[in-house]
Amino acid sequence: MKHAPVRTRSIRVSLGGRSYPILVGSGVLADLGHHAAELRDVTNVIVITSPHIASFYVSPLQRALSESKLPFEMHLIPDSETAKSEPVLFNIFHHLLRFGADRGSVLVAFGGGVVGDIAGFAASVFMRGIRWIQVPTTLLAQVDSAIGGKTAINLKEGKNLIGTFYQPNFVLSDISLLRTLPMSELATGFAEVIKYGMIEGENLFRYLEQSAGKLLQGDPRVLGKVVLESSRIKGRIVSKDEREKSEIRMQLNLGHTFAHAIEREGGYRKISHGQAVAVGLLAAARLSYLKGWMKASTVERVGNLIRLVRLPAKLSELGLKPEVVIRAMEHDKKKKKGVLRFVLPKRLGALVVTDKITPVQLKLALR
Amino acid sequence: MKHAPVRTRSIRVSLGGRSYPILVGSGVLADLGHHAAELRDVTNVIVITSPHIASFYVSPLQRALSESKLPFEMHLIPDSETAKSEPVLFNIFHHLLRFGADRGSVLVAFGGGVVGDIAGFAASVFMRGIRWIQVPTTLLAQVDSAIGGKTAINLKEGKNLIGTFYQPNFVLSDISLLRTLPMSELATGFAEVIKYGMIEGENLFRYLEQSAGKLLQGDPRVLGKVVLESSRIKGRIVSKDEREKSEIRMQLNLGHTFAHAIEREGGYRKISHGQAVAVGLLAAARLSYLKGWMKASTVERVGNLIRLVRLPAKLSELGLKPEVVIRAMEHDKKKKKGVLRFVLPKRLGALVVTDKITPVQLKLALR
Repeated sequence: MKHAPVRTRSIRVSLGGRSYPILVGSGVLADLGHHAAELRDVTNVIVITSPHIASFYVSPLQRALSESKLPFEMHLIPDSETAKSEPVLFNIFHHLLRFGADRGSVLVAFGGGVVGDIAGFAASVFMRGIRWIQVPTTLLAQVDSAIGGKTAINLKEGKNLIGTFYQPNFVLSDISLLRTLPMSELATGFAEVIKYGMIEGENLFRYLEQSAGKLLQGDPRVLGKVVLESSRIKGRIVSKDEREKSEIRMQLNLGHTFAHAIEREGGYRKISHGQAVAVGLLAAARLSYLKGWMKASTVERVGNLIRLVRLPAKLSELGLKPEVVIRAMEHDKKKKKGVLRFVLPKRLGALVVTDKITPVQLKLALR
Repeated sequence: MKHAPVRTRSIRVSLGGRSYPILVGSGVLADLGHHAAELRDVTNVIVITSPHIASFYVSPLQRALSESKLPFEMHLIPDSETAKSEPVLFNIFHHLLRFGADRGSVLVAFGGGVVGDIAGFAASVFMRGIRWIQVPTTLLAQVDSAIGGKTAINLKEGKNLIGTFYQPNFVLSDISLLRTLPMSELATGFAEVIKYGMIEGENLFRYLEQSAGKLLQGDPRVLGKVVLESSRIKGRIVSKDEREKSEIRMQLNLGHTFAHAIEREGGYRKISHGQAVAVGLLAAARLSYLKGWMKASTVERVGNLIRLVRLPAKLSELGLKPEVVIRAMEHDKKKKKGVLRFVLPKRLGALVVTDKITPVQLKLALR
């Protein structure tokens, strides 16, 4: 199946000496070797990917890298969240050394969030930091995890406990890679895209309302636009608050205080991140309404858009009770010795951070 | 035995938002709690140290931290280079979590280079980076490894292969901690101090010549001056080239191209870093003489100063042959696919980087 070509667009994440471009387009993977060769004094390229991704894209990948004339190797890691682990990380190090990796090597993270997180972490600490390129292959990674330089592995005590802030040298978001993505994974990306719509405001939100059908069909032009706009918004926020030192990067947590609790209570397997975020976004909108901020009609639009892309809007659709999720949030709060703080949408395009939420409001928002 | 008090002096390592002070003095450990409490929103303090150091200093450490009213814990790690390993690192992470460490925690690296390297690395990746304080307890750490933010662990394939550049929030160099240091470890520090003398020039070098006797006796005023000047020089170089991107930080490698090969050929146990550096420094001076740069009388002064602090000046004193060391350097060169580059002293206070060295010159310099 041939897709209509999507013109490649470029966005710059401005971080002084650590600035980098995000290239969004159809078939940009073909330029990987070209971009790698643009970096200074590259000795070799090592691609970290999963067997699943490799099974689809090993040929175009090899073609793209062959053109650069740079020696390259591939190292496969498992696909699941459990791969973000100490043994998988150190296995990467040993393979890098076996491949003759040195300070001039370039790592390519070719996959979804898991591959990006662990490969980015490996790049950040191997020989005190080598260069790396993100080639996200899921919608969620293209609109979220591949942007911002957060890397991590998990410990048995919790997720993402060990990691770095380490920006890639560039990001190649190839829309055509999304063709092989299962619908459920596409949907997980939609939830974050709706979040960006709520952060950005009326224009993007309305575009999503109008394009929801095409988005569901995986229309490459709509996906391209959505990845581009999401990258622009996240890139802008990261530029202002690279290391989460201020409240700026907290904007990205819209809906996520709920979502984390929902995911944990649902067990990470049963409820996808996207489902949890979708429910969290509507809960945040309703909480804002209960605070007297968001108009009822806007809350309704948020719920409708979530349903248009076939995501759950209510907690009951996930088989969870508000009490359980609230308890999980309280537990999290206690662990962090802090107060429960929420990022809420005052209206589309205007967020506010508040810790003035009553238990009754929480329960109503989640019902 | 009471020492004459050494006035506390402060040096600033200028690195923009990552700038930090180095405090040098007698008894500055007592201010640890005070300085930790100066940092913003500290939740708790976790000290990483070795059983050896703890056996000497657990009481003053506890006293210093108690004054801050901050909760604190201590985690012991083995003393040797083999402790810079994956299991010891992950053991630190698990203990940090058991101690309730969070983003507000402050790590204290209380020990020599090994403790500083691994604790600094742990701080740099725990929850994507928490604050840390270096309290170096050896002369080598006070004049060298505690300054500059290089952290690392070893892999079975080699030393310092995994690490970060991660600056501490401050360094407390307490001269009085050097009292319990064995002579052999003090001498290892002397070699680096002589290196700084050669980098800096006539004034510091002459001071070392005049104070060598007192240095050997561990005179705290002389040690204080030496730590202060060394910190100033290394801090200045690191400020200009934090991540070893240019030739500036290469200055610190004076004598070390030889030293690394000598250490490897000698087995890391038999020949100390200081012994290897001492021989390397004189070899660099002689190589410079052979290139027609350094005066014979200056080469002689370098050799004399090395002998004054009871360090070996000649390879033969270590029971090694020039051919073996040259072969090791060639092997290293091949591995790095580069040329053998030397930092040489043109005269005291003036370094030059060159790769124009003949095998005959190398052999003569090492004889």
